[in-house]
Amino acid sequence: MYFDDLPVGYRFEAETTHEVTQESILDFARQWDPQPFHTDPEAAKESAYGGLIASGLQTMGIALRQVIEMNVWADSSMGSSGLDEVRWKVPVRPGDGLRTRGEVLSSTPSASRPDRGRTEILYETVNQRDEVVMSYRATQILKRRP
Amino acid sequence: MYFDDLPVGYRFEAETTHEVTQESILDFARQWDPQPFHTDPEAAKESAYGGLIASGLQTMGIALRQVIEMNVWADSSMGSSGLDEVRWKVPVRPGDGLRTRGEVLSSTPSASRPDRGRTEILYETVNQRDEVVMSYRATQILKRRP
Repeated sequence: MYFDDLPVGYRFEAETTHEVTQESILDFARQWDPQPFHTDPEAAKESAYGGLIASGLQTMGIALRQVIEMNVWADSSMGSSGLDEVRWKVPVRPGDGLRTRGEVLSSTPSASRPDRGRTEILYETVNQRDEVVMSYRATQILKRRP
Repeated sequence: MYFDDLPVGYRFEAETTHEVTQESILDFARQWDPQPFHTDPEAAKESAYGGLIASGLQTMGIALRQVIEMNVWADSSMGSSGLDEVRWKVPVRPGDGLRTRGEVLSSTPSASRPDRGRTEILYETVNQRDEVVMSYRATQILKRRP
């Protein structure tokens, strides 16, 4: 879909669930976020979280991957200028099943470049109990329908 | 360092540079951000970027890793509640050398929990030309000095 196909209020949701394994939590965290409550199940038990939790950046990666696989805007994507209000609300633990949904918040044609526009989307990632574990707003630069 | 050791205005900077290779860009993007300008050098040439660029999430991972390795707050970290104003300002390309710096913007003891506080930090990641390629504000929950 193009910029023009995603009006304010448009909603979409992943059909698949991403299961978070302990192995994937450890792998991701050892590479990018080596804090003990992400990398060491024993140390994590002694932490405020009472057990291993996923890096927030891993949850962002899972959400991003799900959104690209939904192919709502992927084919018209010219990248993103940024994110706002990234919030980690509920810890993500081994065995959780995550699903991401989006809602278009604003849609602004470029004033200077007629081939593109900016689409601001609120993303929420929920777990198997429908708790929102993470939310953020992303600004995508999307091609306009030729 | 503890919450108490990071007052407003405190600055720190990575001593090491992280070199971004084409292979690491492709590996990261294939796993988390499979858009053609991140995963396919040939398709990337035809994109608005004129060549392969790193996923913004990879740049966040590089920054996070550098910050944890500096061990400014890592030992007292109780996690992060979120990020604000994540901005990707300049594309990150193969061969770039990235370095991350931080500055404490606010420092707020918890009203309800005397063992911790919230430290808001502005991060900037710069390339070998000292261009800020990415910036964001992160809120860390840090243990207070016992």
